Amino acid sequence: MHNIPVGVLGASGYAGQELCGLIASHPHCNLVFATANERRGQTLRVRTTHGAPRDITMIGPDDAPIGDVALVFSALPHGASVDWVGRVLDAGAKVVDLSSDLRPGRGGSTHPIPASVPAQVPYGLPELFRDGLAQARVVANPGCYPTSILVALAPFVRAGLVAPDALVSVAAASGVSGAGASPKLELLYAEVTENFRAYSAGNVHRHLPEMTDSIARLGGNFDLLFTPHLLPVDRGILSTITVPLREPLTDPLAVLHAAYDHEPFVEVSAALPALADVVHRNVVRVSAVNVQHVRSPTLLLFAAIDNLVKGAAGQAVQNANIMLGLDETAGLPQ
Amino acid sequence: MHNIPVGVLGASGYAGQELCGLIASHPHCNLVFATANERRGQTLRVRTTHGAPRDITMIGPDDAPIGDVALVFSALPHGASVDWVGRVLDAGAKVVDLSSDLRPGRGGSTHPIPASVPAQVPYGLPELFRDGLAQARVVANPGCYPTSILVALAPFVRAGLVAPDALVSVAAASGVSGAGASPKLELLYAEVTENFRAYSAGNVHRHLPEMTDSIARLGGNFDLLFTPHLLPVDRGILSTITVPLREPLTDPLAVLHAAYDHEPFVEVSAALPALADVVHRNVVRVSAVNVQHVRSPTLLLFAAIDNLVKGAAGQAVQNANIMLGLDETAGLPQ
Amino acid sequence: MHNIPVGVLGASGYAGQELCGLIASHPHCNLVFATANERRGQTLRVRTTHGAPRDITMIGPDDAPIGDVALVFSALPHGASVDWVGRVLDAGAKVVDLSSDLRPGRGGSTHPIPASVPAQVPYGLPELFRDGLAQARVVANPGCYPTSILVALAPFVRAGLVAPDALVSVAAASGVSGAGASPKLELLYAEVTENFRAYSAGNVHRHLPEMTDSIARLGGNFDLLFTPHLLPVDRGILSTITVPLREPLTDPLAVLHAAYDHEPFVEVSAALPALADVVHRNVVRVSAVNVQHVRSPTLLLFAAIDNLVKGAAGQAVQNANIMLGLDETAGLPQ
Amino acid sequence: MHNIPVGVLGASGYAGQELCGLIASHPHCNLVFATANERRGQTLRVRTTHGAPRDITMIGPDDAPIGDVALVFSALPHGASVDWVGRVLDAGAKVVDLSSDLRPGRGGSTHPIPASVPAQVPYGLPELFRDGLAQARVVANPGCYPTSILVALAPFVRAGLVAPDALVSVAAASGVSGAGASPKLELLYAEVTENFRAYSAGNVHRHLPEMTDSIARLGGNFDLLFTPHLLPVDRGILSTITVPLREPLTDPLAVLHAAYDHEPFVEVSAALPALADVVHRNVVRVSAVNVQHVRSPTLLLFAAIDNLVKGAAGQAVQNANIMLGLDETAGLPQ
Repeated sequence: MHNIPVGVLGASGYAGQELCGLIASHPHCNLVFATANERRGQTLRVRTTHGAPRDITMIGPDDAPIGDVALVFSALPHGASVDWVGRVLDAGAKVVDLSSDLRPGRGGSTHPIPASVPAQVPYGLPELFRDGLAQARVVANPGCYPTSILVALAPFVRAGLVAPDALVSVAAASGVSGAGASPKLELLYAEVTENFRAYSAGNVHRHLPEMTDSIARLGGNFDLLFTPHLLPVDRGILSTITVPLREPLTDPLAVLHAAYDHEPFVEVSAALPALADVVHRNVVRVSAVNVQHVRSPTLLLFAAIDNLVKGAAGQAVQNANIMLGLDETAGLPQ
Repeated sequence: MHNIPVGVLGASGYAGQELCGLIASHPHCNLVFATANERRGQTLRVRTTHGAPRDITMIGPDDAPIGDVALVFSALPHGASVDWVGRVLDAGAKVVDLSSDLRPGRGGSTHPIPASVPAQVPYGLPELFRDGLAQARVVANPGCYPTSILVALAPFVRAGLVAPDALVSVAAASGVSGAGASPKLELLYAEVTENFRAYSAGNVHRHLPEMTDSIARLGGNFDLLFTPHLLPVDRGILSTITVPLREPLTDPLAVLHAAYDHEPFVEVSAALPALADVVHRNVVRVSAVNVQHVRSPTLLLFAAIDNLVKGAAGQAVQNANIMLGLDETAGLPQ
Repeated sequence: MHNIPVGVLGASGYAGQELCGLIASHPHCNLVFATANERRGQTLRVRTTHGAPRDITMIGPDDAPIGDVALVFSALPHGASVDWVGRVLDAGAKVVDLSSDLRPGRGGSTHPIPASVPAQVPYGLPELFRDGLAQARVVANPGCYPTSILVALAPFVRAGLVAPDALVSVAAASGVSGAGASPKLELLYAEVTENFRAYSAGNVHRHLPEMTDSIARLGGNFDLLFTPHLLPVDRGILSTITVPLREPLTDPLAVLHAAYDHEPFVEVSAALPALADVVHRNVVRVSAVNVQHVRSPTLLLFAAIDNLVKGAAGQAVQNANIMLGLDETAGLPQ
Repeated sequence: MHNIPVGVLGASGYAGQELCGLIASHPHCNLVFATANERRGQTLRVRTTHGAPRDITMIGPDDAPIGDVALVFSALPHGASVDWVGRVLDAGAKVVDLSSDLRPGRGGSTHPIPASVPAQVPYGLPELFRDGLAQARVVANPGCYPTSILVALAPFVRAGLVAPDALVSVAAASGVSGAGASPKLELLYAEVTENFRAYSAGNVHRHLPEMTDSIARLGGNFDLLFTPHLLPVDRGILSTITVPLREPLTDPLAVLHAAYDHEPFVEVSAALPALADVVHRNVVRVSAVNVQHVRSPTLLLFAAIDNLVKGAAGQAVQNANIMLGLDETAGLPQ
């Protein structure tokens, strides 16, 4: 059990690089391969928590020995991942898919799902939906924004505290690593520094369906408005969530504590969470504040994560730990 | 008329420095004095739009010849400004007060207002409330956040388009220059870079009263929730505003165009505004987007400003231009 | 004379954009065309010092009416520019070439020079080599690094103060806009923020020949070692120059004052220059400090510029002003 | 041996905070106290490599049980540290002093050294001067800049490769955390972002004596010119070093490999080192390049470190490991 072979498809992106680093530091997993397309043949240097950095040579995906590993992480682009999930399952390995291809709503994709992929793939947000993950052969790893928003909202939704038919409005801001490592003009340093802007405005971001589906599953009956923004930082997401309440709440922080004090990867905080609190950690840091000077009871929720860790690679390892029967916290920075 | 003497109280802060630069570039005004407390005697270098930078020696406030100028800009701290407004009026000069001391709600101050200060001081947001500014001897210059939010909201409020009793939720983010030039741990580079966080959460920011008062004056009957955030940028504010509508709007951008196409300092844009669009300019750049996938009609408004220009010093010069009978745009970067 | 038609080839890069802004603000020039290759048809928004921003539609280079203008600025890439210089001269217009194609050493290019281009093209660093610029039909605009380094060094070289056969070592650092607006992985925000590194180490940068040639022309007989670094800033260059002296200098700052106090675009400063002193200005800010605790007399020189203004577009306009018989400072931010 | 009690004096600064985090993650040490002056009573949150972050309440220095620990790290300010070193030695504990008070040259301090402090305190740069550290009761932890510069230079100095009487010129650049956590105007985000400048120019930095002393100890007979710069980054130092050689070197990288391949905390690299390679690691990453196009043989050396880790707290733990008879690498991030 201390040397489980795993592989990474799509190692050259920021989430893929983060995955390789976490696996290289993992006490029970062994990185057998890491693939890249354009950067195949190049060396990826990853840091480990014990010992010197490790250099990994990325290979082409078709050269990956997917039949020799117990589990594959797919950090391939949306649209391209699902076919590889099918291939990996056919080869007998388990898969954590970091793309949106198999999440609820599929990120809007209409690409056909291979026959070997189950019709219903568990959504791997363990703090909310841990049931079924341990038995799953494939898990859809949540998006970064949804992880932050759903963890903050869920206890209030489950307890029926959100006003019915209300509009829950989320202003979220992400670092640029969330947009990937493919060179684009709008991601150049000179374009991002000292700048800030919204994007996908009007509720059209492809992360919306996995959030609305999850809210319904939690018993919620309200609308979600999600407005993402691009921050001049490398990593981190902060979600600021306005929640109309059914009735006033005396102690909203207590609701979060009750839900999460036993969870190793959720940190309930009276102080407002900042990106600096969470970068390089596999945690969601959440807080809750009652709104003053308004006529209807209203709650503000805040959730901060590292988009590459709890928002991608860290959560993927957390899901893999569950799927492989390991301690859920193994190899993960708290 | 081409050499009107003016002075600046509180020149060492970021808004004060910006004021000195604008005045030094102004075609019709002449900077007679600039004061500072701790930094008195030091030289302030300001850039001008024509010719080389100008060096200004800051003097102590008690040495300022307030009787020799036509108008004084007070960029003194909140609480300390109002007494100086009284002194300047007594000396016969006009005043633009950049502090919150004389704005609606007075920023929560209970410091007594000197007898020479009128009970009702016009709120100097010319695009919304131009009446009375030309005749005023003292004008309260609006806060940076309120400028961005009120300009975006006003046309919809005046037209009665906001749903009655609704909650309008604003997530706004500001650069650190808005917090001033007094050294504090939380404003150090090492604390701000690669970070992002909310502050004054729960609707407790001192800018709230001037916004709610202005909304009432515009005919609005709804609640405002204002949540500011601290951005890792020097200057700029972006406000993202969720507006429940009375009924669906076919073309929200047309509402903005109708209200502002004749205004030199409001820029209506189909593209989402970014800080980089507005820094160093005396404009509010606004946009509007209808929200999809929600059951009640909802609008998203975006407004970007430079907090030191249209949010402080530029708007102060705009008000001074009006009070001095000059062209409202004189000396202001568009 | 107040409406001279000019054009810009290569307007979509950062230097080209800066050029369009300077021309749009110029009191005597009129921008007739701006070209782009991949981004042809797109709109470029440029700010002006008077009035609102101006939107310019970029056209393909073959559609540019080069025969209808008095002068063309070529901000085309190194290697691609020289053929266009020939075409423009054939069409009867003057040219300022911002590429390295016609500078001393030609940036290492071996691309043939068109017949219409003179064998000897003046090097347009007016503060050092103003002679001949007014009569030139084509001027080679200097590189950004050379501008900063040569302006700081020249007075000491001309006065024979540098130790013969010495090694003058330059550590220079530039913002990322110097690397252009073409998307590359190493220019992404996530790669540049919180980072710093040297590049082209070992004296192999293509700006070296134009510097060594200019030093020889100034009468220098020493070696230059140039080591550039990439800064996490958008714009600005700081050059730190170690100069072994022939003999001790009592007052090195006086040498700079004597050379430059009459120059509108060189700022001699006792305080060490910072990037913030010079961004968005067409100046070189220089300082000089004697080195203590060493056995041979040694001088430290510092020079700061905005790489896009005095290091590219601003200096190009300065050269154009001279070539067109205008005031050398017209339209340039001091 | 697995639970050695240690304490930290001066925990509220950036080096002190880093120390607390390293100790909290250390396999064999136990943090008994952490002191602060102005921030006494406040909680410091430190991350650990295993398990959740730990909250530490800082106490006043006079309340620190210095007699109950085996070793104290003093991260007190220069000038204030040496008296506490005396007190700790009197109380029977060992000390690693991170200040310059006991380094060669004493950082220019003339404050008297307490009687209990030895006249000769070992300089704790283990890769160069490991002898005597294991027996020392007090070690002077090197400065951040000297660590980077001396590690790069030493192999060439020891081998007599530097030209005699030459001038070795160092341009070094540091992140702002090196300037400490005391709020000062010039360290505010708005002053540092998008800026870059030199300071202490002319060879007057207080780190100079410990470097010249160490060079003499290594057998060097040349001058050092050290010019530091302030980078717009949180952490990291890059030193760029120009070295006139006695004679040409065929393979300078081989000299570094021979000296350091057995050292766990020196990383020899053909690629030029960048800050991003070393942040949060206790390593010096060095490279060497021969200079072309110069008449005398010249070498360029590059060294990158994290100023808070190998440049301060990490090296202090490395020294403590040696003094306590532990594995030198225990608890240190490679």
